[in-house]
Amino acid sequence: MSGEKNLKVALLGCGTVGAQVARILLEDANELAARSGAGLQLIGIAVRNLDAKRDAALPQELFTTDAPGLIAQADVVIELLGGMEPAGEYIAAALSKGASVITGNKALIALKGAELNALASQHGAQLRYEAAVAGAIPILRPIADSLAGDHITKVMGIVNGTTNFILDAMDTTGAAFDDVLAEAQALGYAEADPTADVGGHDAAAKAAILASLAFHTTVSSEQVSTQGITEVTAADVAAASAAGYVIKLLAIAERAEAGISVRVYPALVRRSHPLATVHGAFNAVFVEAENAGDLMFYGAGAGGNPTASAVMGDVVAVARQIAAGAPLPNGSVSQAPRLLDFEAIDTRYWIGLSVKDQPGVLAAIATVFGEHGVSIESMSQQVDAEAGAQLRILTHQGTEAALASTVEALTALDAVHCVLSVMRVEGN
Amino acid sequence: MSGEKNLKVALLGCGTVGAQVARILLEDANELAARSGAGLQLIGIAVRNLDAKRDAALPQELFTTDAPGLIAQADVVIELLGGMEPAGEYIAAALSKGASVITGNKALIALKGAELNALASQHGAQLRYEAAVAGAIPILRPIADSLAGDHITKVMGIVNGTTNFILDAMDTTGAAFDDVLAEAQALGYAEADPTADVGGHDAAAKAAILASLAFHTTVSSEQVSTQGITEVTAADVAAASAAGYVIKLLAIAERAEAGISVRVYPALVRRSHPLATVHGAFNAVFVEAENAGDLMFYGAGAGGNPTASAVMGDVVAVARQIAAGAPLPNGSVSQAPRLLDFEAIDTRYWIGLSVKDQPGVLAAIATVFGEHGVSIESMSQQVDAEAGAQLRILTHQGTEAALASTVEALTALDAVHCVLSVMRVEGN
Repeated sequence: MSGEKNLKVALLGCGTVGAQVARILLEDANELAARSGAGLQLIGIAVRNLDAKRDAALPQELFTTDAPGLIAQADVVIELLGGMEPAGEYIAAALSKGASVITGNKALIALKGAELNALASQHGAQLRYEAAVAGAIPILRPIADSLAGDHITKVMGIVNGTTNFILDAMDTTGAAFDDVLAEAQALGYAEADPTADVGGHDAAAKAAILASLAFHTTVSSEQVSTQGITEVTAADVAAASAAGYVIKLLAIAERAEAGISVRVYPALVRRSHPLATVHGAFNAVFVEAENAGDLMFYGAGAGGNPTASAVMGDVVAVARQIAAGAPLPNGSVSQAPRLLDFEAIDTRYWIGLSVKDQPGVLAAIATVFGEHGVSIESMSQQVDAEAGAQLRILTHQGTEAALASTVEALTALDAVHCVLSVMRVEGN
Repeated sequence: MSGEKNLKVALLGCGTVGAQVARILLEDANELAARSGAGLQLIGIAVRNLDAKRDAALPQELFTTDAPGLIAQADVVIELLGGMEPAGEYIAAALSKGASVITGNKALIALKGAELNALASQHGAQLRYEAAVAGAIPILRPIADSLAGDHITKVMGIVNGTTNFILDAMDTTGAAFDDVLAEAQALGYAEADPTADVGGHDAAAKAAILASLAFHTTVSSEQVSTQGITEVTAADVAAASAAGYVIKLLAIAERAEAGISVRVYPALVRRSHPLATVHGAFNAVFVEAENAGDLMFYGAGAGGNPTASAVMGDVVAVARQIAAGAPLPNGSVSQAPRLLDFEAIDTRYWIGLSVKDQPGVLAAIATVFGEHGVSIESMSQQVDAEAGAQLRILTHQGTEAALASTVEALTALDAVHCVLSVMRVEGN
């Protein structure tokens, strides 16, 4: 089978992932040809600046600054530049001439995936982006293919390694957010500007991609309700732990009768839940489907080699399809379920209150819950010489709107000093 | 896209899985057509006996006892009869006429997979069997496709729900094997004749399938070194637990420089390892790859609905390929790595000995290890009024041959009453 076709591969970008992809293409050429049914010839590596320090082990004649020229000759384009432009322009140019594209660009796919998928279908090209979500973990293909004969009801993932490292360290050591963030930056687990990670934006892009595939629809990252972890305190983590929970930043895509909801926020997860056992910078995606039941996919969420593994899986898949002579249709959008307003979704709240330590306080608080139709699952009080009286209240399920207005009314109560924290609870 | 092609689907077998597959094909017909790019028309369900009690909700006119007649008309055949024959004969007949086949028949694929794959390739048909390993968990496709650009070094799975239920219950309750087996039988987690499960044979078939896909080769279930869990005692479980381990029945496919090894045995797994957190009848497969690092896939390993989900994922995949006009080549066997003798593989032993409680015993035992070139990682002694002195010895890595001859020499020692247990340790 091998050797019949020879595919010209252009690589855009040569950072940690790109350099490893180039090495694999060069070193494993024979094996890849045998597995793909087509030869994969790396014809060039486009970089921004030829003078920049580059992997000395790679053939220097492959490097070029002429990305458009490289794309013009290629059958397969691997985009690992990141960012919106020129990556988006290059991908569009490749697909428009019928070349297939593999990318790990989550921000771009989360914003323009539908448009680029349509362009691919129109020109008989393939667009694959397994590396965009959860690094090495094969998650997009299982969702799009293996579960294609099932109905996915919920996807719930720890898809950002930096925030999981931080929350896990806070849980293990009791340290404060700022201290752990500084440590994560020193260790290279967090960037100098950590906003995209700790603000939940990276997770939101991945949530949009997961939702689009799981529900055969189009969700853009702009439609994801997003809350980061910057306001999670050591006290929250300790109180959650005492109640048998751990706090995780979750990317959630959920389907209900009325429509779908896609959201990112820090949430309490019971210690016995499989997601609670995901430590350090690891990622995991929990999937609930009508027939399959509960599934979990676990692995390294980032890093040059793991991400290169995901890219190469897509490269072989693309090559196999080209070798077989007919590209598969790109994921069809069979329905467009309504995206629910965040206020309409059902969730559970865990509310921390600083209250006056006097008779009648509990009754006043319970009354507010009752008036808003929110029922309480459990309430625990802690009185501390320094901090005063603190209440932690876990609610039963209610709409975001009802829960939010309950919290607002609690704030107005004379007996309540302040709301210490409001967090959601996920995974029963 | 949908409605352009109409594929005739024949279902062989209508047990728990088959009935659910039939329901999905009938109830979700429109959605499946949209996702596949081809209509899927269930043309008949072949059963052994028309008088047997059947799902009353399914159209009775679909049932027939004429499997060969049904196959003759079909584009896609779903084989859910189980057992070697006539299932093997039917699958061969379907593939030979160019019809694609989906099966969950692990015993058949583990023994005749290579032959059937060759038949499929020869006739341009597809053969898929995701349901054969670990029920609903998408594991074969991630191994064969997502990791196709990586090198898998080890696959280590809890792939038999019955034995995991039994070992987990022994670990949780301290009960003996026979008592837990009886309970599992009463709960329906174990069959009246549990030999295939507790003897490790079911896991061995799955190990053969996993090894064949992970290493692009052909391993038959007959080549798998297999040991079941019938000799695991409550004392083993308790001693392992005290040392920070849990005992799991593992299906292992491993690649070393010299060749590959495929084996099934109960092994000690450290409590902090992801596989240790797999409870009850759940399944999980741990995969180590050069670039991807450690991955784990977790979910329900059996049951009508989960298995039907895996079958339907394969049905959609087959239909998409047919709709696209060209079947993908079936998994190519690019190399045939040597299958190592069990004696040649490296492993670690955990040995329980009943010994005389007298001076010089430890020295005599340590000398035996030294003479066989096996080094000891840790040794712990427990003296019990009833049981006498017991030693638990954990070795460093050594070949099976060296470890086995060490145990043989220990048995011959005057100071050793008997060998209580020998178990391997996996997952560092």
